[in-house]
Formats: sequence, C-alpha cells, structure tokens
Amino acid sequence: MVRLLGLDPGLQHTGWGVVESSGNRLRHIADGVISTTTDLSLADRLCQIHRALNTLMDLWKPDEAAVEHTYVNKNPGAALKLGQARGVVLLAPALAGLPVAEYQAMEVKRAVVGTGHAEKEQVAEMVRRLLPGATLKRADASDALAVAICHAHHRSTRVALAKGRVSA
Amino acid sequence: MVRLLGLDPGLQHTGWGVVESSGNRLRHIADGVISTTTDLSLADRLCQIHRALNTLMDLWKPDEAAVEHTYVNKNPGAALKLGQARGVVLLAPALAGLPVAEYQAMEVKRAVVGTGHAEKEQVAEMVRRLLPGATLKRADASDALAVAICHAHHRSTRVALAKGRVSA
Repeated sequence: MVRLLGLDPGLQHTGWGVVESSGNRLRHIADGVISTTTDLSLADRLCQIHRALNTLMDLWKPDEAAVEHTYVNKNPGAALKLGQARGVVLLAPALAGLPVAEYQAMEVKRAVVGTGHAEKEQVAEMVRRLLPGATLKRADASDALAVAICHAHHRSTRVALAKGRVSA
Repeated sequence: MVRLLGLDPGLQHTGWGVVESSGNRLRHIADGVISTTTDLSLADRLCQIHRALNTLMDLWKPDEAAVEHTYVNKNPGAALKLGQARGVVLLAPALAGLPVAEYQAMEVKRAVVGTGHAEKEQVAEMVRRLLPGATLKRADASDALAVAICHAHHRSTRVALAKGRVSA
C-alpha cells in the first residue's frame, strides 16, 4: 500500500490530492487547493505554496509525488509565470525526500478516461467514479487527483513488470 | 552598510553575486555560478539550486536579495523551463526572511551602463570597473553582480528619498 500525492501547479491555485494505492485498488484520502494572496509579492506567494505543501505532506504523509506537466500554448509570459509555481511545486516533495514523477496532461487523460483528448469535465466525472468520496469543489483538485490516479496506474504496471506478471 | 545578493536564474546555470553597499560606495564580496547536473531529474536539479542558495546565504549572510526578470521572447517551452528555476531562486531568499526585489533586464542595464539597450559585454565591462576584485569567470556571475548593483542604486535612492535628501 502506498500513498500518492498528485499536484496540479498554478501561481494562483495549486490543486492537490492524496490517494492510497494497493495493487489495482485506489482509495481517496484527501484533496484541496492551495490559493495564494494576489496582493503579495511573487516571492511571498511562492513561499505560501511551499509552506502549504510542507503542511499537507506533514499531515497526509505521502510516499511519492506526481506533478502534471501542463503544455502552455499561450504567450511566453504566461509560461514563465506557470513555470515559477511549477518549480516550487516540484521542489517541496523532492526536498522532503519523496520520488517526484512528472506526467504530460495527455498521459493523465489517457490513464483516467482512456483517451488523451478527453474534455476537462470527462476527467472530473471519471475521477468521481474512481474515487468515491472526493468532493472536487474545484477543477484544480480534480486535476491533481487525476495525476495521482495516473501515477498509481504507471506505478502498478512498473511493479507488475518487476514481478514478471505482465510483459512490456 | 548592507549586503546584497544578486541572482540571475537559470536551470543549468544560476549566477550569483554579493556586494556590500554603503551610501554611494559599492564593494565586491563574492560571486559565482550554481550549476546543476544535467542527467538528474528536474526536481533533483531544483533541489541542487535550492541547497546551493541556502549554503551561500549561510556563508555570505546577505541582508537583501534581487533577482533578474529575464524577458523570454523564445518559445513557451523555454519560458516554462526558465520559470521553474526562477521560482526556486525567488523562493530560497524569501524563505530565509530576506526582502526579494525584482528588476527587468533593461532596468539592470540602465543602472549599470546608463542605457537599457547595452550589450552583454558592456555590462560585464562596467561591472569590472564598478567592482574591482570581481573575477567574472562566467557571464552568469557578471549578470548577477549587475542585478546587485542595480538594487544598490535603487535602494540608496529610496533611502535618500526617505531622508529628504533628493526629490522624486
């Protein structure tokens, strides 16, 4: 049994979700959103994200983390902004000694819905079905749980491969 | 007298420079480059940057930090990559309780050379003149010292304004 922390980074809202994975079974543990205070400086907002991540890792004690790699097709300014939050989101679990996996948005959709071109609402619907008990008050938390589910699938495939139960 | 840490973020190379500012006088204290191991994961490379920043803050005990805000006119992928390093570079001094200022590359050039359109080599030449003793083995360290110089100028103007010695 392993606890996985899924993270969907953003400067304003960073979604997070914790699931427990045991073989092919998944259980919802907790989810939520870290929101930063917009009138603080960028450095202080990044501190808010860092401290909130440390608090929730202390509370939920995940064994591994997985972070969504959002493809940014907007302007370089938006990409820089997202990157700043993403760097801090990758850093906190790594500093805490957790292995940190990264998944492209398309991989996450494929793992959860079955197709890399699923709509956001389809992903949320599948997360609700796979994880009864998830409140999903915000889309960011749903995306974070989707990343955790994706990591659980990849992980159990890797474990099964290592045990020789499936072929590559 | 105040010690200022200038930072020029990059995932592969983050330049840093420490200067001491007292009124209009500037003194070079130290400079260098934090380089990350390219075959490590992104999260581990961000940890390397974070830990190196903490080590050099412990060693040189700066009072304030200033970070260059590089304008990225390349593709969003490059901006996301730079942003990740930049987020971690902004975070470390803020977590250590230092005020963190940000300056656009043009502001830095204007403060050091007198024009926002100066070439990289002109900036390095002026840094060498303003800070005898700076070794500037790499351009990243020179850029970081330029940010520290820019912050020193803005800071002394603010202090003078507060004392009523100059008008706005």
